Amino acid sequence: MSIRTMSRFAWFLRPERQGFPQRFSIAGARVLCAVAVFSPAFLHGASDLGAAPSQGGEFVNTLMPQPSSLTVQSGAFPLNGALTVCFTGVHDKMLDDAVARALGQFEEETGMAMSGAPACGPAQAQLQIDVQHPAEAVQSIDEDDSYSLVVGKDRVLLQAPNDLGALHGLQTLLQLVQEQAGGYVFPAVSISDKPRFKWRGLMIDCGRHFEPVPVILRTLDGMAAVKLNVFHWHLTEDQGFRAESLRFPKLQEMGSDGLYYTQSEMREVVEYAHARGIRVVPEFDMPGHSTSWFVGYPQLASGPGPYHVERVFGVHDAAMDPTQESTYVFLDAFIGEMAGIFPDAYMHIGGDESNGKQWLANPKIRAFMRKNGMAKPADLQVYFNRRLLAILKKYHKHMVGWDEILAPGLPKDAVVQSWRNLDSLRMGTEEGYHEILSGPYYLDHMESAEEHYLADPLPANSGFSAAQENLVLGGEICMWGEHISAQTIDSRIWPRAAAIAERFWSPAGVRDVNDMYRRLWVESLRLDALGLEQISGPQRMLRELGGSASPTELEALASVLEPVSFGQRYSLQKTDQLTPLNGLVDAVVPDPPARHAFAESVQNYLATSPANQNDQAALEKLFGSWRQTASKLEPFMQSSPRLVGYAARAQELGQLGQIGQEAIQYLNAPAGEPSDWEKETLARMDAIHEERILVRFAILDPLRKLVVAAGASRSHLQ
Amino acid sequence: MSIRTMSRFAWFLRPERQGFPQRFSIAGARVLCAVAVFSPAFLHGASDLGAAPSQGGEFVNTLMPQPSSLTVQSGAFPLNGALTVCFTGVHDKMLDDAVARALGQFEEETGMAMSGAPACGPAQAQLQIDVQHPAEAVQSIDEDDSYSLVVGKDRVLLQAPNDLGALHGLQTLLQLVQEQAGGYVFPAVSISDKPRFKWRGLMIDCGRHFEPVPVILRTLDGMAAVKLNVFHWHLTEDQGFRAESLRFPKLQEMGSDGLYYTQSEMREVVEYAHARGIRVVPEFDMPGHSTSWFVGYPQLASGPGPYHVERVFGVHDAAMDPTQESTYVFLDAFIGEMAGIFPDAYMHIGGDESNGKQWLANPKIRAFMRKNGMAKPADLQVYFNRRLLAILKKYHKHMVGWDEILAPGLPKDAVVQSWRNLDSLRMGTEEGYHEILSGPYYLDHMESAEEHYLADPLPANSGFSAAQENLVLGGEICMWGEHISAQTIDSRIWPRAAAIAERFWSPAGVRDVNDMYRRLWVESLRLDALGLEQISGPQRMLRELGGSASPTELEALASVLEPVSFGQRYSLQKTDQLTPLNGLVDAVVPDPPARHAFAESVQNYLATSPANQNDQAALEKLFGSWRQTASKLEPFMQSSPRLVGYAARAQELGQLGQIGQEAIQYLNAPAGEPSDWEKETLARMDAIHEERILVRFAILDPLRKLVVAAGASRSHLQ
Repeated sequence: MSIRTMSRFAWFLRPERQGFPQRFSIAGARVLCAVAVFSPAFLHGASDLGAAPSQGGEFVNTLMPQPSSLTVQSGAFPLNGALTVCFTGVHDKMLDDAVARALGQFEEETGMAMSGAPACGPAQAQLQIDVQHPAEAVQSIDEDDSYSLVVGKDRVLLQAPNDLGALHGLQTLLQLVQEQAGGYVFPAVSISDKPRFKWRGLMIDCGRHFEPVPVILRTLDGMAAVKLNVFHWHLTEDQGFRAESLRFPKLQEMGSDGLYYTQSEMREVVEYAHARGIRVVPEFDMPGHSTSWFVGYPQLASGPGPYHVERVFGVHDAAMDPTQESTYVFLDAFIGEMAGIFPDAYMHIGGDESNGKQWLANPKIRAFMRKNGMAKPADLQVYFNRRLLAILKKYHKHMVGWDEILAPGLPKDAVVQSWRNLDSLRMGTEEGYHEILSGPYYLDHMESAEEHYLADPLPANSGFSAAQENLVLGGEICMWGEHISAQTIDSRIWPRAAAIAERFWSPAGVRDVNDMYRRLWVESLRLDALGLEQISGPQRMLRELGGSASPTELEALASVLEPVSFGQRYSLQKTDQLTPLNGLVDAVVPDPPARHAFAESVQNYLATSPANQNDQAALEKLFGSWRQTASKLEPFMQSSPRLVGYAARAQELGQLGQIGQEAIQYLNAPAGEPSDWEKETLARMDAIHEERILVRFAILDPLRKLVVAAGASRSHLQ
Repeated sequence: MSIRTMSRFAWFLRPERQGFPQRFSIAGARVLCAVAVFSPAFLHGASDLGAAPSQGGEFVNTLMPQPSSLTVQSGAFPLNGALTVCFTGVHDKMLDDAVARALGQFEEETGMAMSGAPACGPAQAQLQIDVQHPAEAVQSIDEDDSYSLVVGKDRVLLQAPNDLGALHGLQTLLQLVQEQAGGYVFPAVSISDKPRFKWRGLMIDCGRHFEPVPVILRTLDGMAAVKLNVFHWHLTEDQGFRAESLRFPKLQEMGSDGLYYTQSEMREVVEYAHARGIRVVPEFDMPGHSTSWFVGYPQLASGPGPYHVERVFGVHDAAMDPTQESTYVFLDAFIGEMAGIFPDAYMHIGGDESNGKQWLANPKIRAFMRKNGMAKPADLQVYFNRRLLAILKKYHKHMVGWDEILAPGLPKDAVVQSWRNLDSLRMGTEEGYHEILSGPYYLDHMESAEEHYLADPLPANSGFSAAQENLVLGGEICMWGEHISAQTIDSRIWPRAAAIAERFWSPAGVRDVNDMYRRLWVESLRLDALGLEQISGPQRMLRELGGSASPTELEALASVLEPVSFGQRYSLQKTDQLTPLNGLVDAVVPDPPARHAFAESVQNYLATSPANQNDQAALEKLFGSWRQTASKLEPFMQSSPRLVGYAARAQELGQLGQIGQEAIQYLNAPAGEPSDWEKETLARMDAIHEERILVRFAILDPLRKLVVAAGASRSHLQ
């Protein structure tokens, strides 16, 4: 296909066209007004927090992840219309499609038609793509992801050893577009880039809650945009068996409530991912977390049936029976079938949280253990894993499993995914196993982007040997499924996953949190334009919760709240699979933009002496708006069946506004502060901090700093 | 399946589960603050326009369409948790699935889990569904759509002669949910309902721009919600052949840029629609509007090839050759194949805008016409239609075609779709043909919901005989495809189509425009919760256009703008199929909520003497906000490559704000008005009204009324 028709249409081509057309936009050289991204209502009280003047004519680095090397040149390449592209090396379908998608995104970004540019030779090309080798038919963990990108004033040169690097380079080019002098340009830069880790994954648990195919596809778009390259697909759980088997159809027919991926859908996902430089590693969790298998096939289980799809979350006793040969006959056939769908060299067998209770309760299994000298269930699991490994080998798969598979006798080509912590990672590498770190990257814990970002798979002070370091393949972000639905998953994954993606890709020294947040909100807008719903989804849910009479203040309150941690929600709400996930806790987002923006403005305010009057006025306006929001919103929430349980937070927002006002007052007149004010205020804030409700304030820490500063200013005076 | 598992999962079941889960919410008894639905920023200047106090404890009618008969009783049925349902008549899959979807929507509306209610006998049922007959396997135009719904204090009874009526009744029940005394209720009502017209259609042109399957599916959800029952699928155009043919694969392979529906996708759409009580009538436009057929099969054409997919819109010369037998052999095979996919008794053959030029330019065709006594191309088209009709009959299809098929010799079982006006409808019915009216329901004309709503297929003064009236089957809303994309189609269709749906369903006397708008914004929120994107889509597009530094004022400006008419855009922009549809013109919506809200507030203000001071203050605040928006926004737009072309509108908004302020000033001090003020002001507004830019102000008419009133108040004084 020529570029002419490609540029407008090819990104629709099968299998991609099932999804929505690629859409893209970028902030370019406009400098971010961070909070405006999500909460205009909030910002009516604080529209200058975090803002900076727009800078025309200079390169503003909004790349995410940051490249390993970047040199800024003077000048820029103007985007004046359809871009001419030529390929001076490899020119295959993977590249064609990637260029077509990129042109479609340029069109979205600039509003200029990108169709109609004729195919051309290198001499006329504005974008020259020079690739040495095609990508492997099945993407390998060892393929070279590197690329270089040189933007000159009349020409862009993208070079890569293979297609994968070119795909990454195109993503970087998309992030380079910026406004300049009334038009769009690529600023002249010279980039040489390659990833720090070769395994940069995102796991999604589709077992506990099913995620429709379009959700998976748009997530893959987002992953490609930030250079993640492994989609780890957790397909089976106690609560659902999501992969269609033709050999054993009762797996999905009886174990999924009808919510499963057909084989053609799984193939579509694999193909869609491959086209974007992403490997798909499926997980079939065994021997525990497997209740859903037993609904249709109770003979696989270690205990008597009948079984039903499990609604309750947590660790269940049901486990496969590793002592009967029929289990392995079944698994051989099943894994063989799945190996035909998932071509990746790795297959994940779970292995986590098998508590052994059903084994110990079964006399036949106890006898087997005695006979084979197995003292404890973990020994039996080692046996099970060895048998599994032989099956995987038969189908040319390497085994991946969670921490628990690490046990004596585990072959060295298995990969251990560490969900615990750096210590378990250390232990695995000491014993010579390849490891993937996931512990610090659990999105369902509702931590900030900052916390995830600063957790390094190989911290500078970890004391790992060079050999150990080489065994750490990378990291995986985990999106567990207890509390997510198709409506909320995007706002749980994005934009935080983009910050973690930078941790996996960029040099270890890239750790400036403020700069990360500055770029993160720009990246969030780009992901929004791609069709991800981390902005639009929460907005829609707030419209539903508020109804037609909703005051705009509901959005203002929501913008400073976030969900409580996974564990806290689980214990407060006693959630199970049937719990509706459409309360305010589901509509607010973890680490909302307002948190860091407020933290920065408090920091700036306190760092300047005498205080900058504009900074102070902005804070005063903000605190005033919190009080106004509270007084307008609380009665509304009290009368709303779906919001009444959260109404206390509205009232508390007013208290926080008052605390902020007092702090500023006392900072300006320290002697006037009552002697116990700081202590009492911090105690009041501790009470507000208590997680009695499903949502918590995201802005308490910076406010505490302000209170402490007000207190300190007084003690300083005394 | 028992209600227990059904209630939570069955609405995901194939084929529906491809799409997103059904989501639903409703405003209940909260009374609408209209503009807040779409434009919080706009409303910061005018938050009390259109607002009314919330009324607890009473029935607030937000039904759309209005039922033919409704009696309000005292009391209400409280929704306290999972609803128990029983079927005392027919109980089939169609009903099961519909109930499961409804329970899922109740769950979305109320936040209460609807799973877990046991199946029950009639004595324990809270919702009793009593249906006499199953629906026909292929939905017929003559099936009875009626139902009755009686809500008592402890029981709801839904009765219908067949499944279709029950589906409509469930939609009504979903619209009845309202808040009361801190919980949710169905208010006690007695409804007896049936449609005024049996053909209530929506046509979507997927030829000029392709719409992905998820767009079609969510549109069907929206149609079902407002009781539309015919999806007319315009599948072929000069610009694209969108239906996969296995007999003639070059149709889609060469005529679609890869953008087409596979046969399994078309079957999925038919099944999805059928489950929702919607017929699918496919259209294959012939003999004109058919360039895309000829790319792969030039032998069908009347002129020499080669052909390419047409990019330019309008009427093209290419037409099928009706004089060669091979054309009919081809069409027989093709229509036979399509008849196997589309079971409906009707098939649409287009027939519009065939200009005859290619026929007259072909000596062989001219000779054929002479030989057969055909004086003009229209005569040859009659011949073609007769031949087509025979083919349709062979496959048991009735023919539907646009106005142009109405010609001597057309058999009486053909249905004419009138795209012209009421006169063409009259002509058809005078000659005894069944007719469907579409002329007044062209959504691409960018008219207001009000204009469409007041256009009746059978106006009270039309003078149609009873026989003629019986020949009018109903109406069809038309969504032509020149200027829509997957990103914008929802905001072009919704919510206006809901108002037209009421015209097709409700009694002719239901014509209160203010009441329609009050309910329309509530319905728009319901459609939003269903997953339609008429609210979220424009918001996302504004985020893209504004970028990360976008001031909130951009949303405020957008909320009072709308796209210019189809023709005006076409002539200003010279659009073709490759024109990007992502400018401000695509982000603003026709008939924005702010228009009617402003009109009502001006009307209320002027109707009261002396003026209500609150009304006046609200208007003054609004006009002040327009001026502020203008001053903040214009410099931003001037510097933005994608907005600079629209910057004049920002500046003009400031002028309009000033005009409003002056009008109020002069209304309060009439003698102070300069003598030429009214005339000059109206002239300034006329200049602003000129459509030199792709967007126009939606609020000029009410502002003109204010200006004229200010002028009149002066002349009254003199």
